[in-house]
Amino acid sequence: MKKSIGAKPMLFCAPVWLIGSYSPDGKPGLMTVSWGGTCCSKPPCVGISLRKATQSFENITTRRAFTVNIPSTKYMTEADYCGMATSRDVNKFEICSLTPQKGTLVDAPYVDECPLVLECKVIHTLEIGLHTQFVGEILDIKVDAEILGREDLPDIEKIRPLIYDPAHCRYFGVGSPLGTAFQAGNALTRKGA
Amino acid sequence: MKKSIGAKPMLFCAPVWLIGSYSPDGKPGLMTVSWGGTCCSKPPCVGISLRKATQSFENITTRRAFTVNIPSTKYMTEADYCGMATSRDVNKFEICSLTPQKGTLVDAPYVDECPLVLECKVIHTLEIGLHTQFVGEILDIKVDAEILGREDLPDIEKIRPLIYDPAHCRYFGVGSPLGTAFQAGNALTRKGA
Repeated sequence: MKKSIGAKPMLFCAPVWLIGSYSPDGKPGLMTVSWGGTCCSKPPCVGISLRKATQSFENITTRRAFTVNIPSTKYMTEADYCGMATSRDVNKFEICSLTPQKGTLVDAPYVDECPLVLECKVIHTLEIGLHTQFVGEILDIKVDAEILGREDLPDIEKIRPLIYDPAHCRYFGVGSPLGTAFQAGNALTRKGA
Repeated sequence: MKKSIGAKPMLFCAPVWLIGSYSPDGKPGLMTVSWGGTCCSKPPCVGISLRKATQSFENITTRRAFTVNIPSTKYMTEADYCGMATSRDVNKFEICSLTPQKGTLVDAPYVDECPLVLECKVIHTLEIGLHTQFVGEILDIKVDAEILGREDLPDIEKIRPLIYDPAHCRYFGVGSPLGTAFQAGNALTRKGA
């Protein structure tokens, strides 16, 4: 018998991403989001949700572009800080000693210290409630060569991304590999045949 | 100097969720998605993206409701199977020995074996490309009492959710706790003050 705990935004797992954008007057801004996810394979798209009150909301609405920067666990302090401070008051890149690099395909800065960054162009804006969702088409992924693995694709164990626990507001790392997708289920495929 | 690897839907980390829905004629269907994420805090909402070709797409379009069921790592085989087979051909609940329970607030079945389930009502549908995104308002979360932790909230270490690696198509568990959100960044807050 399950217990009801009410209506809450509590899904496991949530990501930890740094969103890069330029302000209308050209200042590089940074913000941490955990409300987001991949939302299409073709074109490849990512959805991120922001509150209207944020500087990044104004930036992305104006510039129609953002970057998703995936910080390694060693940047947990910086990622947490960028979820608390506002770019209206401080230059988060400076305080975090992070380097803004101008995107090559979109009008947004990426974080040079993040091992994997995605350049995104806004193709949809969806007003939901407290948060507005921006759907960004991923125009390119840029990576540090060191995090590439088999088939020259990014290796999650080298990226070491953060995971956000929305219930107790904690950060976790990625654990052990457990199995291979589109293979693990084969035992049941035979059962269903 | 970063290396460009092109436009791909490769974000870290991605979740592994079982989506429950009823077909137009009342059959419980199940499907695995990793393209999804929280997209609003108020009302609490989750976005999931499905291809039009799936039975679940037809179900959710018709019934305007779905459940998000978070499988523990011990259900990796079942979760993987539900991402390969189609409910058009097989009864995935039966093959996986999972139990469909009628949602109490929405017209969709949830998976009794999953430790945490969310009942969702569709409030937006967004056509993106290969995938269509359904935004579901979370009307209730139901949990097994055993996974509750501090403050009677779900404990991620008891849920043991799966993580999907979209680059090498692998499943991972959650690793070690690394820090507390809205606290870890305080060192930098002082620097910025």
